[in-house]
Formats: sequence, structure tokens, C-alpha cells
Amino acid sequence: MAAVSLGNGNVSSHNADHPTPPVSSNLGSSSKHDFKRVGILCPNTPAFLESIFGIAAAGAVNVAVNYRLKTDDIAYIFDHAEAEVIIVDAEYVSLLDSYRQTHPTVPFIIDTDTDASEGQLSGPFDEAVLEGIQHDASHGSHGWSGLAHTTPDETSLLALAYTSGTTSRPKGVEYTHRSAYLAALGNVIESGLNYHDTGRAHYLWTLPMFHAMGWTFPWAVTAVRGTHYCLRKIDYPLIWRLLREEGITHFNAAPTVNTLLCADPNAVRLEREVRVTVAASPPTAHLFETMEGLNLRPVHVYGLTETYGPITKGYQMPEWQRLPVKEKYAKMARQGHGFVASLPCRVIRTDVPEGQIEDVKRDGKEIGEIAFLGNICAKGYYKDPEATRKLFAGGVLHSGDLAVWHPDGAIQILDRAKDIIISGGENISSVALESMLVTHPDILEAACVAVADSHWGERPKAFITIKTTAKGDLTGEDVIEWAKHTSGISRFMVPREVEIVDELPKTSTGKLKKNVLREWAKGGNRDVS
Amino acid sequence: MAAVSLGNGNVSSHNADHPTPPVSSNLGSSSKHDFKRVGILCPNTPAFLESIFGIAAAGAVNVAVNYRLKTDDIAYIFDHAEAEVIIVDAEYVSLLDSYRQTHPTVPFIIDTDTDASEGQLSGPFDEAVLEGIQHDASHGSHGWSGLAHTTPDETSLLALAYTSGTTSRPKGVEYTHRSAYLAALGNVIESGLNYHDTGRAHYLWTLPMFHAMGWTFPWAVTAVRGTHYCLRKIDYPLIWRLLREEGITHFNAAPTVNTLLCADPNAVRLEREVRVTVAASPPTAHLFETMEGLNLRPVHVYGLTETYGPITKGYQMPEWQRLPVKEKYAKMARQGHGFVASLPCRVIRTDVPEGQIEDVKRDGKEIGEIAFLGNICAKGYYKDPEATRKLFAGGVLHSGDLAVWHPDGAIQILDRAKDIIISGGENISSVALESMLVTHPDILEAACVAVADSHWGERPKAFITIKTTAKGDLTGEDVIEWAKHTSGISRFMVPREVEIVDELPKTSTGKLKKNVLREWAKGGNRDVS
Repeated sequence: MAAVSLGNGNVSSHNADHPTPPVSSNLGSSSKHDFKRVGILCPNTPAFLESIFGIAAAGAVNVAVNYRLKTDDIAYIFDHAEAEVIIVDAEYVSLLDSYRQTHPTVPFIIDTDTDASEGQLSGPFDEAVLEGIQHDASHGSHGWSGLAHTTPDETSLLALAYTSGTTSRPKGVEYTHRSAYLAALGNVIESGLNYHDTGRAHYLWTLPMFHAMGWTFPWAVTAVRGTHYCLRKIDYPLIWRLLREEGITHFNAAPTVNTLLCADPNAVRLEREVRVTVAASPPTAHLFETMEGLNLRPVHVYGLTETYGPITKGYQMPEWQRLPVKEKYAKMARQGHGFVASLPCRVIRTDVPEGQIEDVKRDGKEIGEIAFLGNICAKGYYKDPEATRKLFAGGVLHSGDLAVWHPDGAIQILDRAKDIIISGGENISSVALESMLVTHPDILEAACVAVADSHWGERPKAFITIKTTAKGDLTGEDVIEWAKHTSGISRFMVPREVEIVDELPKTSTGKLKKNVLREWAKGGNRDVS
Repeated sequence: MAAVSLGNGNVSSHNADHPTPPVSSNLGSSSKHDFKRVGILCPNTPAFLESIFGIAAAGAVNVAVNYRLKTDDIAYIFDHAEAEVIIVDAEYVSLLDSYRQTHPTVPFIIDTDTDASEGQLSGPFDEAVLEGIQHDASHGSHGWSGLAHTTPDETSLLALAYTSGTTSRPKGVEYTHRSAYLAALGNVIESGLNYHDTGRAHYLWTLPMFHAMGWTFPWAVTAVRGTHYCLRKIDYPLIWRLLREEGITHFNAAPTVNTLLCADPNAVRLEREVRVTVAASPPTAHLFETMEGLNLRPVHVYGLTETYGPITKGYQMPEWQRLPVKEKYAKMARQGHGFVASLPCRVIRTDVPEGQIEDVKRDGKEIGEIAFLGNICAKGYYKDPEATRKLFAGGVLHSGDLAVWHPDGAIQILDRAKDIIISGGENISSVALESMLVTHPDILEAACVAVADSHWGERPKAFITIKTTAKGDLTGEDVIEWAKHTSGISRFMVPREVEIVDELPKTSTGKLKKNVLREWAKGGNRDVS
């Protein structure tokens, strides 16, 4: 595997073109579980990438966590997953201060990501890798290359990918070896990672590796002997330089990232086409048109953490080339059809009893829920049988996304049933945000919806009601200041606007009417009924 | 699925871009087996292709038979597989005359392959398809599209692929749904069938579909929504016309077919690159050089009927471009590395007790047997537990091919175990000798076998065919003189005899029939069939 570490302005090769050794000797054994769990808290670094392979080769389960979560959520995840060791980037060790106090026996393996020359050790992480190699060699395991190529049970756990928490706490999505393998092969095919037969894919890690295990691209890129370019953080001028000068052939990014990339002053039409796999919030037709103008060819996929990332693709039909431009890009912006490694996707009725599965009409009008089944669906939620039961109610995987189904078989998301707010590529749970806002001593209720934001794609807007006990005149600005500095709310989740209202619109059973709030946010009618 | 029927000089579209309906209603139930078996005896036609999908969708097992076998062997296979119905091309019904007498109750579904316009019925096969659609629709099975997308047991049988049985009766290699699926995904990636994202693959069926189930390409091409161009028989001028005029992007063929294709008077360098997946007998470096000159880009794979066709690929390294031409093509002619959908291939020692598995040194010198393991190995031989045991002795699949293992991990076939020539204690690879002989400007093909020699034990005898462009009267003695003094062939490998023949005996898949050549060398019958 070839990996390159980027982010300090310099580009240096980190690894030669050989499989990554496991870090097996560093992992203790567990008496409670039949698998070991290794936490990862790193930006997109070679160490992260190597850990993904090393942990699997050691027969353990990786628990890669979003370092942008608040420290409380990070600690919750490592605690919930019962991590036995944590591989952490030197920059993020401080995020584990509180976790370390409650879990003093869990060892950390710290990576300094110092772009050491090949073969040189640069810190504890590299030493751990070396120890793993020596351990492995001395045990002569697994035949000719010293690596575990196989797992005794393909349905065993490979990783726990935690959601960002659409309810109050993140859920650990169970990834198996089998499904990750098939999803990776599917992504090779759908994103065309094998396009360059002798030149090989040069894949730029703009997508966070922690997000749904990087949509299985750690395996997909390696499967075609590609080179991973590991980017510590999004840096648009650097990305443009790499696209122009380093022969990048592929990257993945959310629409918001692509929007900002295309708007960057360094944007220039590339001489060679670069394939950009786009997912997360539904992209606009305008974005695709802009991208193609820069020779960034969109591969439009859609999926969930629960589907290992991509599970549909917007297959481009040759006849679309003859359509008017706006129509062509509108079709491209649809979520598409089932992946090659999945069963066809479906849109099912939501007005039938739970567990009853009926398709909506394929008329582009009847709204239903997107549902999946097949090889690249997650096993379930770790230690949460009730959530798992709901996820698979009736025998299909419920996406929670509302869509219509077109006559040509393409699905199109209309709304996100879970009211997720996607800001700068991050999922913000409105429910989680609301539950934090109401910790303010003067706030009675809170309801959050997405509002369009030219920079972040979406930002949250909060509607709040005030306790009658509140003293003084609380303003929206006061709440924002509190949220930023006192509340413990992660910075990216802080609402852009907070509006105080007398009453929130609710259904007869007391559920917030988010659709009405979205109208309010746009300046619509304020009737609460 | 789009399929086009060719072979009468005309090209016509047979099917629209929709999944193929099953032929389920035509299949009787069996009390002896838990699966039904449907024979296929067709050239490469749309009916053959549709049957592959329809039989699987009906939960049955296809038994596609090589129509070039002796009628006695064809009858043996259908009898051994206990076929309950046979789909047969009108041209080949007579091949079943004797079978019909001993199996009067087995019905035939005859396809007339008349290039009927879309939607029109043209004979019993099309009627059977229609009956299947109606039956399926009336039972409303399998949800939204009416097709069975899944099998209740992925390790259940999909097909029985009979070997050509050069030395004994054909053996029925058991193909499962799971392995065929994974092999097909692997072939998409390795042959780059997804290369053309909007233009789609246009795949020309030069490879017989009956051979190892067309190396799983019926599924691989369909998986990427490609168009199948079904060629009833090899016709070099027609192939060149299709390559030039019909936008063919891929085809598969044995080295012998490629050799004759490149030597055809219609050969011309193509404007657009066509990917040619090459397997069967080991190709020569000379062939690859010739192919690239015509813009036929070789994808060099290697495999067995027992591995669903391709299971290794000669991955081209970027640095090879800087090598001298002869060295580059010599490396390309090696059999390569494990497929993306397989475990790595190995070369194992043959001088240890059966069942003991030890790798040879990776020195390019020590000769051993190529062995496989992983997802795309067959389940076994149908109704032949002893042959199955031998195939998997020691827990790996034994290829029966002798090879060396190079330091870069590539394997290189030297010979079938029984084809190696042992002269004065030295092993002479007939394959290596043949590849050197064809570098002579007037030699088209070469085939070498051992002949008894009182002094050396064995010596090579070469049978050669001459290019139509050859000037003058090349004799065997001329070739021997050239081999001794000009060719660079090691002295001990120089053939004792060189005989010029009009045609070499080959199997229907283009492999040299060395057993026939050995008979020739002993003065036996010269019938090439």
C-alpha cells in the first residue's frame, strides 16, 4: 500500500508499495468479548490508514471516531465500544483528557505523523507497528506474507462506525468483513478506481476516514493498488495544487466541500478529468454543472453510515447528452439506482402499518421511504437490539429518508425524515442540538431546522420558547453567545440564528412540526395550527 | 440487458435494455435432487445468454456443453448431469440424435436465432421465454421486478461447467452463485469493463460462452450495463469489421485466436484502444507486442475451469515502460498475481508428500505447482468425490500447472506437469521453447512435445505452422539451424526435429492438444479434430 501524508504544505511518500503490517502484539485480550476493539482518533493520516489494515489483520475491531464531536461524545463512544487501546494523533490527545481520567487503564498509541523518511521510526505509533511485525514474524502466522488475509467468520465484526447521533447519543453501526469487502469492490467499480490500468488511481483523502470507514475506500483504493494521498484537513488551495500537479485521479467529497472547492480562487479547469464521488446532502444540479466545467466529473452516489456509505449511484444514460443542460443535470442530481454490490433500492409506503413493506408507485410523485436490502447493509447497532429491530422492521433497512421513485427506476430524495442538518459535510442532529439548548436555564423548548447557508451549505436555525421564570430579556444573540462559549455544544453545531417565539407548532400528539418550522425560517406564514 | 446476434454478416439488436425474464415454467421438478438441471447446447447467441440468466432466476442449474465435443461426450455430459430439459440451437439438434434415443423423455427447447425484431417471437425458445414471463407474473414472485434477485443459499449450485476432458471423461465443475458473483465483480475490475462510464462496454463474444461459463462474463458485462455482441462463430474478417465499425470495447480470446486475428489480412491498427482479455494457453511476449501494435491492449489473465476462468492477472507496473521492449513484453507474458477477488496465488513444492503444502522459493528458478485458494475456487467435481479430494489435497486447489515464482510475486507457467520435457536431467519448458520459436519471422505458431531419445532420455520435437507472408521454402532443418545459431535458444533446448504442418490440433477453446501431438510424434493418426 502506498500512502502519502499531506497537510503541512509538503508532500512526501510515507510507505512503499507493500501490504501494511498488523499491530497485533499491542492488543490485549478480552475475557468479555470474542473480539478486541481498538479506538482511532486521527485526522486523515497514513497512521489512520495503516491502522485500519493492521487492526483487521490482528483480528480486532476498529472504532474510528469523529474528532470534531464534543469530548463528551468522544468519551461516550470509546466507553460504549469498550475500547481496549486507542490510536490517537498527537494533535488530538487533549480531546481524551476527561476520558483518560475515567478510563486510566486504556493505553494510547500516539502518532506524530511527522513525515519520517521511509523505514525511519518517528514515534510510538511506528514503534507499535514494528513490534507488531516482529511479533507476527516470530509466530510465522498465516503463511507466505505474514498477514492474515482471511477471517474465520466473514460475518464477524470489522469495525464499529458510530453515527453522529440522530437521537441523543451516537449509535455504533456494526460493519462486517464480508459487507465491507463487497462494498469496497462495488466502490471500485462504481467510482472507476480501476480506470487507470498502469498509471493506477491516485486517491486524495478529502473525505474523513472516520466517516462510515471512509465509505470503504481504504480497501477499495488499496484493492486496485492505488496511492492514498492523506490530507490532514481540508485546504482548498492545497487541493487545487494537488489536482493540478500531483496527478490526483479521484477524490470523494460532500456537496458543501465541492461547492467551496469550485468557489475557491485557485479553481481552474483541469487538463485531465478527475472523478469526484459525491454524496451526503443531496447535491444541486447547479453544482454538477459547475464541477463539469472544471473537468471534475461527478460520480453521484448516496448512502448511509448503515450502508457502508454509497449504496446507490446516479447512472448516466447516453441519451441524457441530448437533453437540455438543466434537464441533464437535474437527472444527474437524483440519487439513482441500486449499486452493483447491492439489491435494487426501493421506495416504500409510510402510510401502512410498521413491518408491512409495500412499494410506492414509480410515478415521481408518491412519497415514501427509501429502503435497502442486500450485501452492503450493516449488521445492526452495537448493544442496541431495539434500534436494530427498528432499522430492519419488516425485513428491509429503513433509511429514514423520504423520496419519490421515478419511472426510470431512479430515486430522488425530497426530505430527510430524520431532520438531519448537514453543515460543512458534518451531520448535525437537530434532536441532539435541541436537547443541549434546553439545558440553558431560561429556555423551555427548542426546535432546530436547517437553513440554507452560502458557506456551509446548511446551518441550524433554532426556534425557542422561554421559561416564564426567566429573568430579564433573553435575546437570540445571548443564546448564541452562550452556545458558543458555555454550553459545551460543538462549535460546528452552534445555530446561526436563534429566534424566540411564543409557541412552537406541534402535532396533536405533541411532535414538533418541522415542516412548518422550515416555512417559518423562510419567512412563511406563522400560523401555529 | 442488451444483446446483439451476429454471425450471418448482419448485426441486429435483439433485446432492449431490460433484465432477462426467466424460463421457469418450462422446468419440471425433480424428486432426486434439490435443484433442477437445464442443458444448453448453443453457440454464442442471445438465447444462450438469456438462458444463463433465466435458468438462475428459476432456481435451476445450467449445464452448458461444448458443441465441438464428440456426440458421445455430449451425451455423456447431459446424462451425467441428469439434464431435465435441454435448450438447443437449431443448428445443433442433430448432435443429440443418439442422446435422444436413450433419453426420449427429456424435452428440447429449440432456438432458431433468426434475429427477429424486438418483441416478435421467432420460435420455441422465444415462446418458452414468454411462457416463463407469464407464469412469473401470475405468481407475483420476488417483488418489484418479477425476477429472483437472490438465492436462498449462496453456496448452492448455479452451473455445472464440464471440462473438455482431454485424457479422461469430462468432469462437471460445480459453480456456486457466490463464487460466480465474486468472480464476475473481479472480472469487471480486472478487465476494466466499467471503463466507459456513459458509453458502456461493448463486449464481443469471441470466447465461447460454454467455456467455464464464459469466464463469468455473462454476469460481468451485464453488471456494468454493457452490450453483448453474440458471435456464432469465429470469423476474423467479421471481427475486424466489428472492431473498426461497431465500437467494440472489449473481447476475450485465447492466444491462438489472437495470433490468427493479428495475422488476418484485415488486421489494421485501431483508432481506439480495445481491451483484450487473454488466457488459456500461455501467450508469448511476441504476441503481446504484435497486439499492442494494432491497439489491441492485452489484459493477461490465467485460470482454470475450476477457478471460474481468470484467477490471476499480469499487473503492469509503470516502471516497465522504461524497460527494453523485449523485457517489458516478457514480463507481460508472465501469469501474474492473484486476482482482486481471490487470495494470492502460490507455487508449491511437488517433491513433498501429497497434502503437505510448502511454497517454493521466490527465485524465478525453483519449479513447483501453481495452487489457489479463496472465493473463486470451484466447490468440487459433480458426483466425483475422489477427484474433488485430489483437487483440494492439502487444502489448496491444485492447478496441475508447473511454474516458477519470481521475486516480484509474479508466477510464470513453464508447463503442464505432463508436458514438461526432461532432457539429460534438464527440465525443458515446452511453453518457453514455443515462445522462442515464434520469434522467427516466418513462424506463426509452434507446439513442442517430448520424443524419446536413446541418449538424452527425451528431446523436444516442434510442430510449426508458417505465416502466409513467409517467403521461400522454410524447412525444418532451416529452423533447427536458426535455433542453434541465431535464436538465442539454449543449446540443450534446441528441438531435435522440426516439422511443418498446415494446422495444429487444438481444443475448442484454443488450447494445444499436446496428447494428439505426442501421437503424431510417434507416427499416429494425423486427424486434427
